[in-house]
Amino acid sequence: MANILIQGATILAMKGAEQEIKDGEIVIQGDRIAAVGPCGSIPANYRADRVIDGSGMVALPGLVNCHTHAAMTLLRSYADDLPLMEWLSQKIWPVEEKLEPEDIYWGTMLCCLEMIKSGTTTFADMYFEMNQAAVAVEKSGLRACLSRGLIGNAPNAGQALAESIAFIKEWNGRAGGRIKVMLGPHAPYTCPPDYLRQVVEAAGANQVGIHIHVAETTDEIEQIKAGYNQTPVGYLHHAGLFELPVLAAHCVHLDEADIEILARYQVGVAHCPESNMKLASGIAPVARLLEAGVNVGLGTDGAASNNNLDLLEEMHSAALLQKVATGNPTVMPAFTALSLATTGGAGVLGLDGEIGLLKAGMRADLILINLQRPHYYPLHNLIANLVYASQSADVDTVIVDGEILMEGRRVLTMDEEKVIRETQQRATRLFGRI
Amino acid sequence: MANILIQGATILAMKGAEQEIKDGEIVIQGDRIAAVGPCGSIPANYRADRVIDGSGMVALPGLVNCHTHAAMTLLRSYADDLPLMEWLSQKIWPVEEKLEPEDIYWGTMLCCLEMIKSGTTTFADMYFEMNQAAVAVEKSGLRACLSRGLIGNAPNAGQALAESIAFIKEWNGRAGGRIKVMLGPHAPYTCPPDYLRQVVEAAGANQVGIHIHVAETTDEIEQIKAGYNQTPVGYLHHAGLFELPVLAAHCVHLDEADIEILARYQVGVAHCPESNMKLASGIAPVARLLEAGVNVGLGTDGAASNNNLDLLEEMHSAALLQKVATGNPTVMPAFTALSLATTGGAGVLGLDGEIGLLKAGMRADLILINLQRPHYYPLHNLIANLVYASQSADVDTVIVDGEILMEGRRVLTMDEEKVIRETQQRATRLFGRI
Repeated sequence: MANILIQGATILAMKGAEQEIKDGEIVIQGDRIAAVGPCGSIPANYRADRVIDGSGMVALPGLVNCHTHAAMTLLRSYADDLPLMEWLSQKIWPVEEKLEPEDIYWGTMLCCLEMIKSGTTTFADMYFEMNQAAVAVEKSGLRACLSRGLIGNAPNAGQALAESIAFIKEWNGRAGGRIKVMLGPHAPYTCPPDYLRQVVEAAGANQVGIHIHVAETTDEIEQIKAGYNQTPVGYLHHAGLFELPVLAAHCVHLDEADIEILARYQVGVAHCPESNMKLASGIAPVARLLEAGVNVGLGTDGAASNNNLDLLEEMHSAALLQKVATGNPTVMPAFTALSLATTGGAGVLGLDGEIGLLKAGMRADLILINLQRPHYYPLHNLIANLVYASQSADVDTVIVDGEILMEGRRVLTMDEEKVIRETQQRATRLFGRI
Repeated sequence: MANILIQGATILAMKGAEQEIKDGEIVIQGDRIAAVGPCGSIPANYRADRVIDGSGMVALPGLVNCHTHAAMTLLRSYADDLPLMEWLSQKIWPVEEKLEPEDIYWGTMLCCLEMIKSGTTTFADMYFEMNQAAVAVEKSGLRACLSRGLIGNAPNAGQALAESIAFIKEWNGRAGGRIKVMLGPHAPYTCPPDYLRQVVEAAGANQVGIHIHVAETTDEIEQIKAGYNQTPVGYLHHAGLFELPVLAAHCVHLDEADIEILARYQVGVAHCPESNMKLASGIAPVARLLEAGVNVGLGTDGAASNNNLDLLEEMHSAALLQKVATGNPTVMPAFTALSLATTGGAGVLGLDGEIGLLKAGMRADLILINLQRPHYYPLHNLIANLVYASQSADVDTVIVDGEILMEGRRVLTMDEEKVIRETQQRATRLFGRI
């Protein structure tokens, strides 16, 4: 692991203020940040193996994608513009039954490739054949929280939980600590109370968190109301879930009591505006959640319902959607949106001591964005530009744990053409055409 | 003007069907398309001066941006996250007063540069110092409908109309027909009935259309109701505006009678989803407008309220926003969204006989998008990919009137660095810092 010095970039450290350091310096020592400051911050005894010229660029913490289904890149643009249940039952599920373990590896590789190219350095995944996903994450150089999806009312529910526990033992903390395992009970409507209690017990015994879909659609609200006379959040609370660290994806349909519970238990919410818009699920009350002190991050959801994994775009959509939904243009200002994508996401994944800020002692997870593009000029306000005008092709350099994963848009940890070719071939096998 | 042959691209001709021509050929003769079809379509007597290899790309009609204020690129990210009236009166208007004619030229150049780089070939502009804007458009190679904004209740209202008429005489049909002039009465709430009647008369006498903001905010609805006991659309109808071709920007707040009028008079609506979201103006009933047979295109609005001029992104936002607003994921499917950005926009600007489709006899306005990107794989559905997964940096080549404006992302009609430098310097003068 090399010592890297980044010189000349404008630095957005994201330390709770909108302060920018012009012509800054970031000192990386091994897998950690050793110093961040204006030109001249290098500690006396530091020797750089590599110097990166960051002039004309902005350095910020790597983006955090708090909810996806990585290998669903294989199903990108396969089925769109359909009602949710028709989309799932007639299109998505039948294909997922045909996926083989190696498909998951290559689909996850494609996800990692797209994420690196769009500035994401950490993501939270829920899918199956997670050993394959873990191998792909290890190879890609990204950081990830991985969870096998557990359908509590499926015939293999017990076996899936047992495999999840084995997966924890094999992979939690691996890849130099870049891989963290969570348990992934799918959703309130697919996990009966008894099963949830088993999951809670296993999570506690293995000291891992829980990743779950919560209150995504009005159908779910009605189903949990009919079955248990509770809201999804109330139902999970009752099952004891929130005694553990929980990553709750979506949280579109909430009442005030739900919001109070999410805040009290410091549940992390993965807000997925584009998936919620595309599937017409609704608009999460993010402004209200933030006001109530809930931890919120952003997620793209899987590529089948988005249809990209572009977190800069997600941040933009999140800000615009809250403004129009509340009728208030001052809601979710640019700095808040950027915070959700960085510090917010880090908190939601329980990694806030490690990533999400650029400061000494943190993991060296950061990106450089090239500002030499007409859509950033004149350079009035860097943060507004990043939130409202950027695109992921502007991301130039990506570093995770002090390793350079992309430089000058060239991905160094995988063969981009091979990943594209492999996934295209696998899709052709799976779908019989393309 | 050269004869250009494009070979090997997948062609989306946008002729009312989702048909793709794989390995297609586009034959350009001078400023027109001579043939579009599968490999082998070249007329016998055709001789190409240039052959463009389109393999791995998709060719589609150039995108049409139906509403912007081009030179407001100078105010990009200068003021954000503010209530509309505070934003306008305390931030935007005071700066606009300081703008000099040459600022308009360079601001419009920056707009044109950004549009070329994001695949827009035609745009409708409303601003001031329009002679400067016209010079920039002529130089850029783009096609544009230009209108000077007319504030009917301002002291210079009469003079502005006289200047508009002079502008028509000087510029309408210039630049090889690429520039079309319209009259630009600003909005119902800034143009009293008498003034509108003068504008209608002048437009009729000079055979030009009208570009106007309509029903953008609830404030406007209330103001026109209080003043005239009408809706904005009813007010304009009463003033005789719709006897002429009208481009109505925004149309966020409409009732059924308004929609019936817009359909009956074939008014063109410029839907601006991102500006309407960012300023929290509301959500235009686009699905209902389309159902009623209204012509709809897309607009970015000015860079001060967007903050980019990226029509691929606007198309994406338009589709997602209608789905979530109606609670119906089948609303505005991908092909409809792409149609709004191409054929729809052409119709809204009254250019449907000239642009918006790839077929023999049309103006040679088209773009090539490079599909060799991880976010397009696997290639299940090209149209869904373009609408839901694309980004403007994927636009490789832009051709207008048979002239290549960009190739391999290099803009040929202007010096990109000079445009950026000039606008940055002018912004520094205007704002005293940056």
